[in-house]
Amino acid sequence: MDVMLMKAPTGHTSQEVTLRPATPADFAAIYDLFQSILHEGTTYSYSPEEMTKERSLQYWMEAPGTHCCVAESGGKFAGVFAVRPNRTGRAGHVANASFIVHPDHRGKGVGRALGLRAIEVAKSLHYQSIQYNFVVSVNEVAVKLWKALGYSIVGTLPKGFQHPAKGLVDVYIMHRYL
Amino acid sequence: MDVMLMKAPTGHTSQEVTLRPATPADFAAIYDLFQSILHEGTTYSYSPEEMTKERSLQYWMEAPGTHCCVAESGGKFAGVFAVRPNRTGRAGHVANASFIVHPDHRGKGVGRALGLRAIEVAKSLHYQSIQYNFVVSVNEVAVKLWKALGYSIVGTLPKGFQHPAKGLVDVYIMHRYL
Repeated sequence: MDVMLMKAPTGHTSQEVTLRPATPADFAAIYDLFQSILHEGTTYSYSPEEMTKERSLQYWMEAPGTHCCVAESGGKFAGVFAVRPNRTGRAGHVANASFIVHPDHRGKGVGRALGLRAIEVAKSLHYQSIQYNFVVSVNEVAVKLWKALGYSIVGTLPKGFQHPAKGLVDVYIMHRYL
Repeated sequence: MDVMLMKAPTGHTSQEVTLRPATPADFAAIYDLFQSILHEGTTYSYSPEEMTKERSLQYWMEAPGTHCCVAESGGKFAGVFAVRPNRTGRAGHVANASFIVHPDHRGKGVGRALGLRAIEVAKSLHYQSIQYNFVVSVNEVAVKLWKALGYSIVGTLPKGFQHPAKGLVDVYIMHRYL
């Protein structure tokens, strides 16, 4: 069984986080979460409108080389990641990954569990590194987590993101060898 | 008329470089050049096979927001660029651009003429900056030219490109405000 159990960090609610490969039945929950995050507008560049169901299905589950896992906490859908090739051809040895932690399950170690599993998945697929192309610099929880999991900031896109509350802010590119 | 005349740099063949918006009739030459450059394999990550005619047409001319110009030197096709949105939504204020100088016309100021025109085009479209996502670090002519045109290296993707002669080499992300 492709299941990983993670103890939540000390001091948080101690429900276990379970990870498993996504199935078609998970897509409705993934799509709802993705749409709510795009409406929030603080982490992804895409507009909610452009990320139709069809494009979201490609993005999270069906584009070539995409591996999608979901997290559950207390039996409920708690988050999702997808690992995929960052580029093809002469850059096809670098993976990319996207993550969302469900707002009802933040601060419980879900992001950490997703991030660790994404590294395992990318390793198992024989990628040489993982690159995140778009980490909004003011998303401090994410930046701190990725650093804790061994990622470095390898680039800073100046004023690359129109944040709904903070205006134009920098975007980091983060990278980790596998 | 949307035409720019550029004097070639002193010491090179002094043929003028003419730039104009691409038309559908230019695509055959653009596609042949793109394929030959992908076979050369030193600058773009894409494999020649994945860049079918259909995908190449999207890439250079038809994807939403794409503006393509061709350069001519001595009446012959000498190069091409396309300016496009780098991302959509909350990052839609940043342009991206791709360039190829025809091997028969290298060292004649064609790249410089294309680069200057791309800046003009992006400005006219009200972008706030241009970002190049994938400048192979050992492509010294390109790196030097982009620096001369006001671009800075804002990121380094470690071992991001499988160079056909040099193995894994770094890739630069370059950026310029408009």
